[in-house]
Amino acid sequence: MKVRIVVTLKPGVLDPQGKAIHKSLEGLGFGGINDVRAGKVIELDVADGTSDDDLDGMCRKLIANTVIENYRIER
Amino acid sequence: MKVRIVVTLKPGVLDPQGKAIHKSLEGLGFGGINDVRAGKVIELDVADGTSDDDLDGMCRKLIANTVIENYRIER
Repeated sequence: MKVRIVVTLKPGVLDPQGKAIHKSLEGLGFGGINDVRAGKVIELDVADGTSDDDLDGMCRKLIANTVIENYRIER
Repeated sequence: MKVRIVVTLKPGVLDPQGKAIHKSLEGLGFGGINDVRAGKVIELDVADGTSDDDLDGMCRKLIANTVIENYRIER
């Protein structure tokens, strides 16, 4: 079973990587960009019986830093 | 308009970050994991009139390294 976990910075947390991408895109001539946020995506191939609780545990214990990051589990 | 760009390593390209996450999850006691791949997600807030060609250009010129990475544009 393929599961995708998307980890993004919480609103209000500074995102220097996103800012750098934003400035670079403008420097390349792409206009009309209001905001850029950078995050991570982790694609897991797990056993079919893996529960939501297990996936949640993986995120909380390792994949996401819940102080500054949100995560979303997409099956 | 919010657009999400998901950048993942092409199949066959070594993914040390994914491997490290895989080993760490197993070390924490999570079993049944077959594979882990790590990637990036870029969330753009762009003007409503932004064309697919523009988004494609952003990916090719800056966001993704198309030699080793695939990208997917999700509106």
